[in-house]
Amino acid sequence: MKKAIVLLSGGLDSATVLAIARHQGFETIALTVEYGQRHRVELDAARRIADALQVKHKLVRVPLSDFGGSALTDNLDVPKNRTESEMVEDIPITYVPARNTVMLSLALAFAEVSGAFDIFVGVNAVDYSGYPDCRPEFIEAFEHLANVATKVGVSGEKITIHAPLISMTKAQIIETGLGLGVDYGLTHSCYDPDSTGRACGACDSCQIRSAAFHSLGMDDPVLAHLRL
Amino acid sequence: MKKAIVLLSGGLDSATVLAIARHQGFETIALTVEYGQRHRVELDAARRIADALQVKHKLVRVPLSDFGGSALTDNLDVPKNRTESEMVEDIPITYVPARNTVMLSLALAFAEVSGAFDIFVGVNAVDYSGYPDCRPEFIEAFEHLANVATKVGVSGEKITIHAPLISMTKAQIIETGLGLGVDYGLTHSCYDPDSTGRACGACDSCQIRSAAFHSLGMDDPVLAHLRL
Repeated sequence: MKKAIVLLSGGLDSATVLAIARHQGFETIALTVEYGQRHRVELDAARRIADALQVKHKLVRVPLSDFGGSALTDNLDVPKNRTESEMVEDIPITYVPARNTVMLSLALAFAEVSGAFDIFVGVNAVDYSGYPDCRPEFIEAFEHLANVATKVGVSGEKITIHAPLISMTKAQIIETGLGLGVDYGLTHSCYDPDSTGRACGACDSCQIRSAAFHSLGMDDPVLAHLRL
Repeated sequence: MKKAIVLLSGGLDSATVLAIARHQGFETIALTVEYGQRHRVELDAARRIADALQVKHKLVRVPLSDFGGSALTDNLDVPKNRTESEMVEDIPITYVPARNTVMLSLALAFAEVSGAFDIFVGVNAVDYSGYPDCRPEFIEAFEHLANVATKVGVSGEKITIHAPLISMTKAQIIETGLGLGVDYGLTHSCYDPDSTGRACGACDSCQIRSAAFHSLGMDDPVLAHLRL
């Protein structure tokens, strides 16, 4: 069985990617990066998802919050209740500088040590909220880099960066995951959870996933507390 | 004054690069990555070098040692007293998987937060000991990645990865540094220092720098204790 490293944040997208990688027959090893996110509750979600699927799970701590510069790591306000056009207007304050580059670099290091030639990441260009490191050209550039940067790459093996969600809508992602048995109640995507870890329902991330569930005639299971 | 992030390991190469970046007129900010290296004494060297030049210095901890797979982070033997042909035969066990990719990614994150568009790194293709991530194609691939991965890059600014040592011999690096006033007695390059932090004189890294000093008619100042 070929091994694959799957970047698992604990969110809806990466939970789906983990299910896809398993469905494709890979022996999956989940890697979660604690980068100093304010929404640490997603780390618990990552653990729950990995446990539910009984996959190996590694947590690595990289304090990007030491650098600052993002509402996801600093004490800045997370935008709420924005319209769809406001969301796509500009790169939002929730952008974490070079986050996906750092995460994929760590996955690359872990892959090389683990004997894996495949890395899965849940980036998504459709609902990407304007993050530059969620676009196909970013994935292509990283894959090229991976193959010149590593012992594995120069030894003739090919490292592949899989981004199976990249051109899916959020609704398509959810449909795919449901088909593979993903329990989205275990996931966490909110940028600004309450003190008990419950999703706010109003940040871009909550709004995007909630709308996608609605478009499929369902309610987002992590927003049940707001519907009481 | 344009800002630049300089990756400073505490070794001979990065100390020289810091001097070059300053000489080129950049306001330099040094970034040292503690990746779990066994030779932690180089972190002290980085601090000494930054202090001597009075540059801002940031240390970030990224436990690549959690992944294992290298003599520089694991409890594996560092090769000693190898001939020059043995050194270039194969990628050595001191290779740390994806290390330079991870370090440049962190420098990229720090640069974006700091408003810097320039990153300096002391990689060197001539005396590179077979590390894949010390070659020009690696630097080019990373620079391309940096410009598609970041808000800065997509906003039309150009991020530049400077690797001024890439085609220099170790002797040329030392000559350049001496011309710029680098005190190589402050640096540390040894892969296997003794318990007091003194260089072993026998690992590839010690041998390469010692031979280079000799070729210039000098002794390596960090090996004085072996000449007593």
